[in-house]
Amino acid sequence: MSKKLRLADRLTGTESNVWVEFGSLAAEYKALNLGQGFPDFFPPNFVTDALHSVASNKENPFLHQYTRSYGHPRLVNALAQIYSKIFNRPIDAQSEILVTVGAYESLFCAHKGFVNPGDEVIIFEPFFDCYEPMVLQAGGIPRFVPLRSTKPAGELTSTADWTFSREELTNQFNEKTKMIIVNNPNNPLGKVFTREELEFIGDLCKKHDVLILADEVYERLVYPGKEYVRIANLPDLWDRTVTIGSAGKTFSVTGWKLGWSVGPSHLIKALCTVHQNSVYTCPTPMQEAAALGFERELSLAEGSEDSYFWQIPRELVPKKEKIMKMLLEIDMVPVEPQAGYFIVADISKTGFKVDPKNSESKDYQFVKWMCRNKKLSAIPNSAFYTSEHKKLAENLVRFCFIKEDSTLDRAANIFHEWRSSLKND
Amino acid sequence: MSKKLRLADRLTGTESNVWVEFGSLAAEYKALNLGQGFPDFFPPNFVTDALHSVASNKENPFLHQYTRSYGHPRLVNALAQIYSKIFNRPIDAQSEILVTVGAYESLFCAHKGFVNPGDEVIIFEPFFDCYEPMVLQAGGIPRFVPLRSTKPAGELTSTADWTFSREELTNQFNEKTKMIIVNNPNNPLGKVFTREELEFIGDLCKKHDVLILADEVYERLVYPGKEYVRIANLPDLWDRTVTIGSAGKTFSVTGWKLGWSVGPSHLIKALCTVHQNSVYTCPTPMQEAAALGFERELSLAEGSEDSYFWQIPRELVPKKEKIMKMLLEIDMVPVEPQAGYFIVADISKTGFKVDPKNSESKDYQFVKWMCRNKKLSAIPNSAFYTSEHKKLAENLVRFCFIKEDSTLDRAANIFHEWRSSLKND
Repeated sequence: MSKKLRLADRLTGTESNVWVEFGSLAAEYKALNLGQGFPDFFPPNFVTDALHSVASNKENPFLHQYTRSYGHPRLVNALAQIYSKIFNRPIDAQSEILVTVGAYESLFCAHKGFVNPGDEVIIFEPFFDCYEPMVLQAGGIPRFVPLRSTKPAGELTSTADWTFSREELTNQFNEKTKMIIVNNPNNPLGKVFTREELEFIGDLCKKHDVLILADEVYERLVYPGKEYVRIANLPDLWDRTVTIGSAGKTFSVTGWKLGWSVGPSHLIKALCTVHQNSVYTCPTPMQEAAALGFERELSLAEGSEDSYFWQIPRELVPKKEKIMKMLLEIDMVPVEPQAGYFIVADISKTGFKVDPKNSESKDYQFVKWMCRNKKLSAIPNSAFYTSEHKKLAENLVRFCFIKEDSTLDRAANIFHEWRSSLKND
Repeated sequence: MSKKLRLADRLTGTESNVWVEFGSLAAEYKALNLGQGFPDFFPPNFVTDALHSVASNKENPFLHQYTRSYGHPRLVNALAQIYSKIFNRPIDAQSEILVTVGAYESLFCAHKGFVNPGDEVIIFEPFFDCYEPMVLQAGGIPRFVPLRSTKPAGELTSTADWTFSREELTNQFNEKTKMIIVNNPNNPLGKVFTREELEFIGDLCKKHDVLILADEVYERLVYPGKEYVRIANLPDLWDRTVTIGSAGKTFSVTGWKLGWSVGPSHLIKALCTVHQNSVYTCPTPMQEAAALGFERELSLAEGSEDSYFWQIPRELVPKKEKIMKMLLEIDMVPVEPQAGYFIVADISKTGFKVDPKNSESKDYQFVKWMCRNKKLSAIPNSAFYTSEHKKLAENLVRFCFIKEDSTLDRAANIFHEWRSSLKND
């Protein structure tokens, strides 16, 4: 019928979404879902209790009504306390913080708030998949710098062995470069950038007057003993850095969809302008409950073992060990993460053969095959690479391991039976 | 310092926001806030109970984790049932509904999803203020058609007396017209468009192949006895109409920030593409709770007096009568609404004098003066007009009356003392 009622041009190339595709597939085959990143256990009691206390509050009807556009006062006040410690400077709750619908909306606001058509944005590969369409929808041009293993392919490595080429990164900077996204710890690799890597990035940003978007949503999930440096804390970088955090990752409640941006007011202002014209404000009950969660953490002594921020990375370590062991059983060679709840594994030794009649990449074919035949779901890593670099990831698959031990045991059984079937071949 | 790190050009002209400005002002002067539209009473028990049951659920940990991107299954299923009745056709929960962060994000997705740079969007004045920046941020060109009273200025009117010029509307349609926004019932006027008006609009849209964005967030607040026609239900308009609704308005929980778009899948798809690249998904607890709310309403017999949808418009009528009476006491002449919880009043007979040294419009000056001196806050109506038409609204101010009777009594006292002070002059 209509010739005019088609999608706007800015949507071209942004229609598909790996989460939508593989989420549906896992549901269709009733597969054990180690794809999308979320826990299958309850968040800590103090977090569900916080939401419960909001829902059962009979004193304050305003907990169900619009709150301040840029962030519920109780939440921005708690965040200001948290980040004043982190950044070792007083953070102004009114002008240096924006609360958003997940870290996702913070990323979106930063792109729409800064990127003009033709501006370039530098992204490390593998990258959280939404970065590329967000750059494209803002009319920007993404430029990619792959992280590569310094060890031979197929060898057991840690993400500490993965780094970028200093030359490749330097060559991507030019007068059109507006922004670089530094996802630290990195999803999907679980890589924690070293101080020296961050200083190299920061020096280039100062030299070329470039904005840093520090996506630090996995900040609370750095394993014990690993040094964690925030790029905004390096000398002279505060003024050009927006740091993004997430209640979903922090309190194991991805479904609360609450995140924030912290940075100097002259940068946060741009994000606020996008926010007020796209969603206007975030849900008040979620914000009040998250504020209660932070207040509880703030009330505990530094380094207290009662602190969820102390507990959660320690809970992840044995889960990581468990999944590494099961992956190795069928010769999927994992890249050991230093943070987060994802692990990337190399499938080149599993003997999986691509269907030459299928135009999809090997990792996509593998995950779909595994979902159908092994009832186990994951995410193909080429989703985290731009079109022309997908080849780099054709043997890589991402698993999420922030799951109940019983769930990981079910996965172990799948891998074990898989191993037996290989022996019988 | 930086010359490059400034706001993206698309934000030009969209930085100010009337809600941010007047919300802060009301807080600063501790004024009785009849500005922004939200109740100051608790939502109905079944609604808070719904959130309570989600927060206290010990069976399903997934209520705290990411749900389906385009809408939580339980909520889209409930909405599909609701809208299948409304539109008298089977609505597909998977492809014909998108759940968004408030109706606000639905509006945003529609603009970003359809409007290309240079496309024109027709907006009736007065309009919900976000329409204009949303068109501008998408690179579109807003075209305005004012609603005008058919009675002389200053005379007591109903919004039924307010209509658009058929000629003015026809003249705004051309080959660049992409979309028209039909906010029915209209905010701020509380006007319910007649069948004949909607047919006239629909015929122009068919003739010029134009998309209709039907913002129907006040759909449940049409006062008893008034016929309410939905434009998507007129012949041959379904295929070109996206209808927007709101849990905030429907269940008196504006702070839940949950809305939706309903329409044919070929249109909803465009909104989904924007949604998945801006916020990805809405908070699961809010969606589950809203689903429970709809299921409760669906379980009641048609026309049941226990239904909140039956009760809420009937609760608003005496509140409307009350505020009209108090406005008239100081010669603010109200425009009687037919729906919603706002009332627009004409201040030309109040004797308020503008400060000639102040460049702000009369209505802005009036509301600021009232906020400072009478401790009462409202919204100046020129916020709902484009720059060159703000003159049309210089004598108009919007009050929100979905407030406790005790709050309205406090407002009545303010008006009464104001009246006495006038007599003493």
